Amino acid sequence: MPPPTSTLSVPSSSSPSLFPLSSFSSSNNPHVSSFCPAPPTLPKFPSLSKPKTPLRNLTPLSAVSIEKETLISERPHTFLREADGGDDGSVRSRFQRMILEAQESVCAALEAVDGAGKFKEDAWTRPGGGGGISRVLQDGAVFEKAGVNISVVYGVMPPEAYRAAKAAADDQKPGPVPFFAAGISSVLHPKNPFAPTLHFNYRYFETDAPKDTPGAPRQWWFGGGTDLTPAYIFEEDVKHFHSIQKKACDKFDPSFYPRFKKWCDDYFYIKHRGERRGLGGIFFDDLNDYDQEMLLSFATECANSVVPAYIPIIEKRKDTPFNESQKAWQQLRRGRYVEFNLVYDRGTTFGLKTGGRIESILVSLPLSARWEYDHKPEEGSEEWKLLDACINPKEWI
Amino acid sequence: MPPPTSTLSVPSSSSPSLFPLSSFSSSNNPHVSSFCPAPPTLPKFPSLSKPKTPLRNLTPLSAVSIEKETLISERPHTFLREADGGDDGSVRSRFQRMILEAQESVCAALEAVDGAGKFKEDAWTRPGGGGGISRVLQDGAVFEKAGVNISVVYGVMPPEAYRAAKAAADDQKPGPVPFFAAGISSVLHPKNPFAPTLHFNYRYFETDAPKDTPGAPRQWWFGGGTDLTPAYIFEEDVKHFHSIQKKACDKFDPSFYPRFKKWCDDYFYIKHRGERRGLGGIFFDDLNDYDQEMLLSFATECANSVVPAYIPIIEKRKDTPFNESQKAWQQLRRGRYVEFNLVYDRGTTFGLKTGGRIESILVSLPLSARWEYDHKPEEGSEEWKLLDACINPKEWI
Repeated sequence: MPPPTSTLSVPSSSSPSLFPLSSFSSSNNPHVSSFCPAPPTLPKFPSLSKPKTPLRNLTPLSAVSIEKETLISERPHTFLREADGGDDGSVRSRFQRMILEAQESVCAALEAVDGAGKFKEDAWTRPGGGGGISRVLQDGAVFEKAGVNISVVYGVMPPEAYRAAKAAADDQKPGPVPFFAAGISSVLHPKNPFAPTLHFNYRYFETDAPKDTPGAPRQWWFGGGTDLTPAYIFEEDVKHFHSIQKKACDKFDPSFYPRFKKWCDDYFYIKHRGERRGLGGIFFDDLNDYDQEMLLSFATECANSVVPAYIPIIEKRKDTPFNESQKAWQQLRRGRYVEFNLVYDRGTTFGLKTGGRIESILVSLPLSARWEYDHKPEEGSEEWKLLDACINPKEWI
Repeated sequence: MPPPTSTLSVPSSSSPSLFPLSSFSSSNNPHVSSFCPAPPTLPKFPSLSKPKTPLRNLTPLSAVSIEKETLISERPHTFLREADGGDDGSVRSRFQRMILEAQESVCAALEAVDGAGKFKEDAWTRPGGGGGISRVLQDGAVFEKAGVNISVVYGVMPPEAYRAAKAAADDQKPGPVPFFAAGISSVLHPKNPFAPTLHFNYRYFETDAPKDTPGAPRQWWFGGGTDLTPAYIFEEDVKHFHSIQKKACDKFDPSFYPRFKKWCDDYFYIKHRGERRGLGGIFFDDLNDYDQEMLLSFATECANSVVPAYIPIIEKRKDTPFNESQKAWQQLRRGRYVEFNLVYDRGTTFGLKTGGRIESILVSLPLSARWEYDHKPEEGSEEWKLLDACINPKEWI
């Protein structure tokens, strides 16, 4: 018999450990319900915001229930429930394997390029199934702070959040909908101001069919992205990075790169500054209008592209000599990173407000950041060029 | 004839320059409507949050209209509209005079104790009246960053936000309600890790009577507070600071200090950390259930208490020798300051979301801040004692 879905009642607190660094986005797909809430009824500011992705009503924050995690001393073989068949060939299971392998290979590549720093690992589980592994390398030779986290969540969302259940008659009110979610998310902050910050996150979401509503289908979706945040532009680096993203996308659908590149520019927008956090990459969410196997392969391809997209840039820039003022500019851009993550990033704000594992969520913040009053780079300077590209997103390839 | 209240239509963007550093709070006073919005329908998380102040529905963010500001080269004599009678004996006018004088005297005291840094001044006005003056001292001998801002705002809020107007009959729908608001707000970050950060903010709010609703009264309220955020506890400093706050309070009402001390502890709460930003002080909002003259005197007394409460502490701690690890701890606590201001502070989040003068709003952020993964001070250490006092607020006097 499967363990109970959750020992907590609805409404209850939820944990963000699935997406400790992730960037939730609102959906443009009417066929699937996400358990991540929209910023609750935030008014819109036409003069500032440029939402390109249509918004919709998502599940209220307090309506999702996930158990509280427990730190464990040794990582388990799987975070899947036994009832899921353990490590069978299901998409759940294969997605978990993919993110575990991606965590392994990305961390190995980062340690190799760092040369000195080693990842520290924290693992946790939940009584009813699920758990996560946070890996953090701090104050290495190359990296100031690098976090690579994976997690698996079993939770319950209210039936109102599950659109397919709405077809049920009034006297056939469907019960809460169990869901499964798994993801990898990572932020990598190098020390050298010429070496860019990287963020990536890939996640898979699945509901059970709602109880008491025979025939209502299960839902699933994929989300994620990889984006680059340099303090200085080296065009060859940005072109290389975007080319690898495009190559991964083009293997599956020629519309993916232009669509997800734009989605990325739109998502990582610091509204109050009128600028993007960095130079973009790809971003997508609630993706389920393609073959499920194809999207699993696509997410896998994207995760496998992190190392070839990023490590060559780090190799090239990690030892570039720099001066104090270049370091200060990097620190100012880190300040913008903090602003985006604490004010806008849906994974972070969701996590902070639901009482998840704070240290896993906030590992996305840089080791240090800086705010100068009214700092304006000189027009035409390298700093100005970066800012200009953050204000006016460019086509890099 | 008075100039038009606003050239912008409702809904429209609003400016936070009135409270560039301020801490809006929700109200516990049912008699007055505030133009600052509640975090829109945020769900509550019983396990984490400990809201002591009852919440209520406030004006939606997008419903307040204020004109966009224009930077000016010279500060004007007054920001009041001529229709307000210029510098007459009204509360508006006397409150403006008070905050201008407080800005002057606080800045003079800070420059004197710094010895090297000088304040840079930016002033702006709005076409229909109102404006502000930001003063920032950056990278001085003693202060890393010190901002002391004042502003005056004329705006319009929808009648729904004005409770007294609700008594009107349906066929007598009241028009938009013009309001006036003025405030001083300041954050002072010293360099030395043994010298505490200070925040203070005092503000006055007044509505006109709503048009088309004869007899409906004008509303007014005072808000503000002064609080101390050290990285290390010197009990004599904290006692001194709280004693000055208590002394200012006790001149007016013996209930003020205990009530506003607790309100301060409750307001500056970093929910996701389960800790307060610092060691508190006083905080109050929507205060109008006392004589108006008395509250003007009280706000003036509080503003005048900033220098005697803070400068002696700075004199004592500004040159205390420190090591790198103590500086790093201060930087970590600065990180908490950033977390509070960007995630919870209502003045900041209101300002960021309504498109105000960003540099004035974010001057509250420290020059530099730090985030280490899973940092835990050793039990019994000086760092641990500070953290303990932030988790378990103490009575200092």
